Amino acid sequence: MRFIIQRDQLIDSIQHVMKAISSRVTIPILTGIKIEASSEGIKLTGSDSDISIESFIPKEENGMIHAEEITEGSVVVQAKYFPDIIRKLPLKAVEIVADTNFQVTIKSGGAEFHLNGQDATEYPQLPVLHTDNCITLKNAVLKDLIKQTVFAVSTVETRPILTGVNMKLEEGSLNFVATDSHRLASRKLPIELEKKQFDFNNVVIPGKSLSELNKIIEDNEDTITISVTENQILFQTKHLYFLSRLLDGNYPETSRLIPDQSKTVIYAKTKELLQAIDRASLLAKENRNNVVKLQTKENHQLEITSNTPEVGEVVEELSTDGIEGDELKISFSAKYVIDALRIIEEEKVKIEFTGAMRPFIIRPMENQHILQLILPVRTY
Amino acid sequence: MRFIIQRDQLIDSIQHVMKAISSRVTIPILTGIKIEASSEGIKLTGSDSDISIESFIPKEENGMIHAEEITEGSVVVQAKYFPDIIRKLPLKAVEIVADTNFQVTIKSGGAEFHLNGQDATEYPQLPVLHTDNCITLKNAVLKDLIKQTVFAVSTVETRPILTGVNMKLEEGSLNFVATDSHRLASRKLPIELEKKQFDFNNVVIPGKSLSELNKIIEDNEDTITISVTENQILFQTKHLYFLSRLLDGNYPETSRLIPDQSKTVIYAKTKELLQAIDRASLLAKENRNNVVKLQTKENHQLEITSNTPEVGEVVEELSTDGIEGDELKISFSAKYVIDALRIIEEEKVKIEFTGAMRPFIIRPMENQHILQLILPVRTY
Repeated sequence: MRFIIQRDQLIDSIQHVMKAISSRVTIPILTGIKIEASSEGIKLTGSDSDISIESFIPKEENGMIHAEEITEGSVVVQAKYFPDIIRKLPLKAVEIVADTNFQVTIKSGGAEFHLNGQDATEYPQLPVLHTDNCITLKNAVLKDLIKQTVFAVSTVETRPILTGVNMKLEEGSLNFVATDSHRLASRKLPIELEKKQFDFNNVVIPGKSLSELNKIIEDNEDTITISVTENQILFQTKHLYFLSRLLDGNYPETSRLIPDQSKTVIYAKTKELLQAIDRASLLAKENRNNVVKLQTKENHQLEITSNTPEVGEVVEELSTDGIEGDELKISFSAKYVIDALRIIEEEKVKIEFTGAMRPFIIRPMENQHILQLILPVRTY
Repeated sequence: MRFIIQRDQLIDSIQHVMKAISSRVTIPILTGIKIEASSEGIKLTGSDSDISIESFIPKEENGMIHAEEITEGSVVVQAKYFPDIIRKLPLKAVEIVADTNFQVTIKSGGAEFHLNGQDATEYPQLPVLHTDNCITLKNAVLKDLIKQTVFAVSTVETRPILTGVNMKLEEGSLNFVATDSHRLASRKLPIELEKKQFDFNNVVIPGKSLSELNKIIEDNEDTITISVTENQILFQTKHLYFLSRLLDGNYPETSRLIPDQSKTVIYAKTKELLQAIDRASLLAKENRNNVVKLQTKENHQLEITSNTPEVGEVVEELSTDGIEGDELKISFSAKYVIDALRIIEEEKVKIEFTGAMRPFIIRPMENQHILQLILPVRTY
């Protein structure tokens, strides 16, 4: 294998595939990056078994030469050293050669590296997905879906299925739902599908996979194609191939958790409410989950308080845009409400309560596609 | 105590005094920030016994009102909570009140915090320095002196005196010297002093104190006054008072370590040399101290190499601006040479060797006031 490649393109690709590489893998060769040179260009692969990422650098694109003088072949290089070496090379062009003993030579200007590589045929083959179950979204739309739900997945392994985001298609919309059983985040995306083009339910994507994917895909109008099989999901852009395993098991039915009536409704400015709760939680650091109390007052006022005897107490008075229904005293995890408010870009939110011990709902005022459900904490 | 203060000024002062506050102190009250309100303004103090920092916010400055409605008094607040609270307050103006039970109330807009404070009279008194031993430098000059030497202090406590920077006055110049016994960094600053104005030697300032000071003082043309007593040093700007203990013991005489002749001299471009050594050290991560080898070649060429059998090897070829004297093969810690080259702003350096086992000297070509001495490593 031999080729000359533009360093900047190579650095981008390395950064992408490194997102899948972990030093804690059971198959030693997976601590490396697979490099494959073909007449079309250079492909890098990284994998930790759960996530596999391929990044392709075409020989030529839009009249720009990315790679040249290609002799086909492949090799696996150590991910611990390769990225730093490429990043620090002195010139824009890099020559990479692998001999039959998997010795890799990297040359740029006066710098010459010889790295012990490994046989690429020992690298696990990525499964090839055969499916018609696919859907195409804009990058920016998928990033929103991820950002608005993935924070609510469970981080503990007691119910592994909850560490994933449930993706399902129902009634003309694509829905992402995540819950850790204390709070739930849900986002609907209305889509038009041709019949039979797409059919799946109970697809549960590991939260970690979506977080890594979100870091790689650019926030733009390009499109990404999602394909699903029984146990894997593939996200594919022009030069990127992101494969993740799906979680086993049945995702719980969450729709019945969502109350369909409310006793108290609060209308508030998203940012003001977020900041008041954030401040109220400052002294609640010591107690588990940063519990704060919220109480409705006269004249559309809210009072948010917390109290840690050894430190002190906070009282936040907040003017709302309106409070309807019963008086309310409720305690909740400041962290959960802050997480929920943070992903709401709309200026105003509506919060619906059905009593101090029942879950409450946070929604942007002018967007019915986002719903956040939070369970209160018993303190009163 | 009561006053209303501009939040931004208060945040700056808090950030300064926080540099001296540690959660690992033996005197519990030192985990707090002392606040003193007087008719002139507000003074904050932080201390960990080794370093004490006072930051003063004048009531009024350049026609700007920083603090008003001041009722004199003092209190100590918990440094764990106070900075976050102030930073997150909703309005620009903050009211701070302490009652006779040291209960502190912080109000801004709809936010009201009640914090348990402590009696300021229990806070250790900072010593008042009485000395005529003082010298005034520009901030930017002092920052240079610190930056060019402090990185070479010892980080291990086997010889505590080496964890400090030796400041001395000799032959019309102020000298900063630091060494960890493997390398030495020295910076001279020619100064003119009136007779008897200033007299000291064997002043050893903890490296940590200088690093913290360097973070606080701004890189500008303002001046800073340095006063020295037997066991303390004070750095004073208009509104800042930075006091550090000095290290006990005699600083070793370092001037005799510096060779006065050389057998091989290399002239090189600072940045090129730095980058080549940095790359050569990439594969030497595993061995202690990142040892690399340097060898002079024909035609003013240098070869810098490293070799870690289980990983691979690097060969860097570098054109110099000239090599004079004997051929040379030498091994050294890449880290030490990188540290030394990094603080040199001049484009070119001169490196003087007196043999493979003798310390070598790195100096900027056009600045005789910086000298870096590095001991080689025996590998050949």
